[in-house]
Amino acid sequence: MENSRKKIVIVGGGFGGIELAKKLKNTNVDVLILDKHNYHTFQPLLYQVATGGLEADSIAFPIRKIFKGQKNFKFRVTEVQKIDTEKNRLNTTIGNIDYDYLVIATGSTSNFFGQSEIEYNAMPMKSIPEALNLRSMILQNLEAALIAETPEQEAALLNFVVVGGGPTGVETAGAIAELKKHVLRNDYPELDLKKVNIYLVEGSPALLSAMSVQAQEKSRQFLEEMGVTVYTETRVQSYDGKTLVLGEGKQIHSSTVIWSAGVKGAIIEGLNPDAIVRGNRIKVDVTNKVEGYENIFAIGDVAAMITDQTPNGHPGVAPAAIQQGKQLAQNLLAILENKPTKAFEYFDKGSMATVGRNRAVVDIKKVRFQGVFAWFAWMFVHLMTLVGFRNKLVVFVNWVWSYFSYDRGTRLIIRPYKKKNLENTSNDI
Amino acid sequence: MENSRKKIVIVGGGFGGIELAKKLKNTNVDVLILDKHNYHTFQPLLYQVATGGLEADSIAFPIRKIFKGQKNFKFRVTEVQKIDTEKNRLNTTIGNIDYDYLVIATGSTSNFFGQSEIEYNAMPMKSIPEALNLRSMILQNLEAALIAETPEQEAALLNFVVVGGGPTGVETAGAIAELKKHVLRNDYPELDLKKVNIYLVEGSPALLSAMSVQAQEKSRQFLEEMGVTVYTETRVQSYDGKTLVLGEGKQIHSSTVIWSAGVKGAIIEGLNPDAIVRGNRIKVDVTNKVEGYENIFAIGDVAAMITDQTPNGHPGVAPAAIQQGKQLAQNLLAILENKPTKAFEYFDKGSMATVGRNRAVVDIKKVRFQGVFAWFAWMFVHLMTLVGFRNKLVVFVNWVWSYFSYDRGTRLIIRPYKKKNLENTSNDI
Repeated sequence: MENSRKKIVIVGGGFGGIELAKKLKNTNVDVLILDKHNYHTFQPLLYQVATGGLEADSIAFPIRKIFKGQKNFKFRVTEVQKIDTEKNRLNTTIGNIDYDYLVIATGSTSNFFGQSEIEYNAMPMKSIPEALNLRSMILQNLEAALIAETPEQEAALLNFVVVGGGPTGVETAGAIAELKKHVLRNDYPELDLKKVNIYLVEGSPALLSAMSVQAQEKSRQFLEEMGVTVYTETRVQSYDGKTLVLGEGKQIHSSTVIWSAGVKGAIIEGLNPDAIVRGNRIKVDVTNKVEGYENIFAIGDVAAMITDQTPNGHPGVAPAAIQQGKQLAQNLLAILENKPTKAFEYFDKGSMATVGRNRAVVDIKKVRFQGVFAWFAWMFVHLMTLVGFRNKLVVFVNWVWSYFSYDRGTRLIIRPYKKKNLENTSNDI
Repeated sequence: MENSRKKIVIVGGGFGGIELAKKLKNTNVDVLILDKHNYHTFQPLLYQVATGGLEADSIAFPIRKIFKGQKNFKFRVTEVQKIDTEKNRLNTTIGNIDYDYLVIATGSTSNFFGQSEIEYNAMPMKSIPEALNLRSMILQNLEAALIAETPEQEAALLNFVVVGGGPTGVETAGAIAELKKHVLRNDYPELDLKKVNIYLVEGSPALLSAMSVQAQEKSRQFLEEMGVTVYTETRVQSYDGKTLVLGEGKQIHSSTVIWSAGVKGAIIEGLNPDAIVRGNRIKVDVTNKVEGYENIFAIGDVAAMITDQTPNGHPGVAPAAIQQGKQLAQNLLAILENKPTKAFEYFDKGSMATVGRNRAVVDIKKVRFQGVFAWFAWMFVHLMTLVGFRNKLVVFVNWVWSYFSYDRGTRLIIRPYKKKNLENTSNDI
């Protein structure tokens, strides 16, 4: 009896992996989640951690705690190095782990499109340690600006550039603008605020390209009202850590370049190269089964479900990952019972982005609105989808506090950021 | 006129330094605080950060924010390397800084009493990065215990030893006992909780040696009720990272040894060696003036005001530092106006320590009480002395949450702790 139980190994404790494992509760399978962190990250609010608005701990949730009382669940902190698809085995940093069914839910990582100089010098923001590094760096650069020796140095330290005009880029640029407006004046009376500049650089013609034209235009207007200089149709040529060179000869001296210009799938070595498509995503069929395998699946950002309706796969957003996790749970159980599987259907809940206080944009199918009400809607949705009551409560308290005080309370340099060097990768964690 | 303004440089943004600078608001002097962190740390709650009870960010407060609007105040993040008492100048990591009056308020650091092997292997807990390292290490060791290869390895990973029976040691041992009782059962159903042991090791005959006999006995009773093994009159001989060797041949296999057995003054190079007394403290007169200097003062943990009434100086607690800071502000202004200075008088507000839920001990002069009421008193006093309304609110929310849920919510390994090695000291920050 015990031996007939199948073991489902899920790599990644993000939105998709967590949902899948939850939906397998009280079923006749064993579930093992592997993740390099012991917590689930609520990625949509990373930019608030990076800009001193929220504690890191309130957007992270211990994975073990999510599954408290789920008897068929186990968890290990480890990094998967390779899949041995012949032996149905994973090589990991804590040894080999066998599976009957494997689900790759590893999400995505920053895409620097092969430009290693930019990768080396620009700041990504896809994980909590990265967001904390960025928080430290922004604050360190403000401190350094006070003692800059040349006007060039000072300018570079006070020019903040966000590359990438998707939701993360828009939200980050807006948050830095609010930091300037409400906090720097009080915290750095010695600084000439006119020298603090915030840029948002986007390669395509519009910000928030996945949203409606109204949302695109309004978000740009909001940013400009808040003092952000927006460059669209502008590509980054190079960044040496000091000077960001843009198309058409434009350049900005900046010590702080935040990279949110693209993501790629966080794939694991060992899959057939044919299964990997554009953007490092894993090609899956309508049941999220990886092309060429019978017992390997991929969900969420790392999966590319390419159909006639979705030639680029689904958007890399939490609802798509959650819905795929939910559907895959049903399909895995169906497979085990030799019942027919069901094709995944994406239900688009709409999208939203916040630019700043009282300024957000929301598209829900044909319903589009912007401004104060959109901002409250954005906060409500994010609060509700945060994992854990304590986190909801602490984030709510912080937001209410910030609303009335105009403050971003957690501007702390807990671990100073050190420039990467080849010997020491301790910042990369 | 401007030139006659005197510049008072305060090294250290702890309780004493902050109080002094605040009390100099709206006076005819310039105040500069130097600190290696950009925040003030509320040290009494560090152990709650280390044991997953509180976010780091809620016990830290940006120093710049404390002094918002104080026109004669400046702040720099830097480490002071040396005092040049001849030139009235500090050598720092951001260059030389001149002073008219210097106040050393650098606090204390862990004292390993010259045992470098212990220093290398045991975990200190005197700063936020250290508390976060400890939090990571405790959680990493629990994860590692699940995959231990030998019973010896497993035992070492599940034995937690706190060395030092002062308030910090008692509070830390109690917090780990609560973690075991309320959290590990849910989070690690695979672990045999009987194998998880918590030890508190103290060299002298009693815990909380500065408190009343009632407090000493009751705290020991509380700890033992909570399952902590208490060894008094037991000295640590050695610790190689695996085995803690105690007096009389006792030994404990442990990967987690937390060091709270003593502190020493965090002195700065450059003072006359005669001014440095036992425990690396700086000898000061009754106005906190450093022996042998006319314009250098020391306050708080780093200062030893040795008089007939206080042969060992004042206790290294926040109220002593705050009271000295306050008095020194008056005395500095008196000096500048050629008025007589006043001798410092310590007002002992009493002391308290919490062992766990509903279990604390309080001594206020002759009034002594223990248990539930003491615990609420402890929480009230700590909440009220936390800097900043946001911090108070977030800590309060966390405590109420923990009280009803029996949970410690922030058990996150944000930055995995790596054993120190000589090449990489990134954990030492």
